[in-house]
Amino acid sequence: MSTSSDIKDVEEGLAFKPKFDAAGLLTCVTTDAATGDVLMVAHMNDEALRKTIASGEAWYYSRSRNSLWRKGETSGHVQRVVEMRTDCDQDAIWIRVEQSGGACHTGRRSCFYRKIEENAGGARLSFVDADVQFDPKAVYRK
Amino acid sequence: MSTSSDIKDVEEGLAFKPKFDAAGLLTCVTTDAATGDVLMVAHMNDEALRKTIASGEAWYYSRSRNSLWRKGETSGHVQRVVEMRTDCDQDAIWIRVEQSGGACHTGRRSCFYRKIEENAGGARLSFVDADVQFDPKAVYRK
Repeated sequence: MSTSSDIKDVEEGLAFKPKFDAAGLLTCVTTDAATGDVLMVAHMNDEALRKTIASGEAWYYSRSRNSLWRKGETSGHVQRVVEMRTDCDQDAIWIRVEQSGGACHTGRRSCFYRKIEENAGGARLSFVDADVQFDPKAVYRK
Repeated sequence: MSTSSDIKDVEEGLAFKPKFDAAGLLTCVTTDAATGDVLMVAHMNDEALRKTIASGEAWYYSRSRNSLWRKGETSGHVQRVVEMRTDCDQDAIWIRVEQSGGACHTGRRSCFYRKIEENAGGARLSFVDADVQFDPKAVYRK
């Protein structure tokens, strides 16, 4: 059990004590430093976190590929970190980045290119800021 | 296994098909519609998602309390949803909100009130945008 003094330390202290989940991961939200738009949501393990802090470029951990991943390694679309923050309970990271090209593997600037709207008791999507910045087939070809 | 036609449907289609994780949750990033700042990262289950879409106010699912949670229910600090988006693989939600009071239970506007900085091979936190907007003891008293 966490004591109230442990909690105060995590929430009000200046020691960085990232709280990884059972899989050893933190959630990372990446926003565009220029526009404030959310570019992507991904995960970092301890190594990705340390490499991001040390290099000033975003590294993540891919759950689907089970591997460390330097953003832009294949596409060239790297993310330069302008500011990095953690939240109250230190289980999430927010990085503001300068994004070269696009963050999304579909070729868009952001992964969040569809809006959710209520529609006759359900919900429907519509495209927004969905211009394709690059051709994923050309960028990710093997 | 997902076929490439399933993937294309999820990524390029206009049907909303939220992909909940094994615990039945999506990750939700909530930003301030006025400033673009990330206010919080939380989770939504199917019911929280449907209530958010239907009511235009943010509902979440608390993993620690195992319960549905209308943001601001106790504190009065509700979040009016200005726009709601989903990402390429539909396992994350981004909502832009008008936040009344503060989003963080510590009394701050945002949960992300500490910056991470490299410090002699490690990392250290410093406060940023950390002004307390309300007294949590007064707001959350039982």
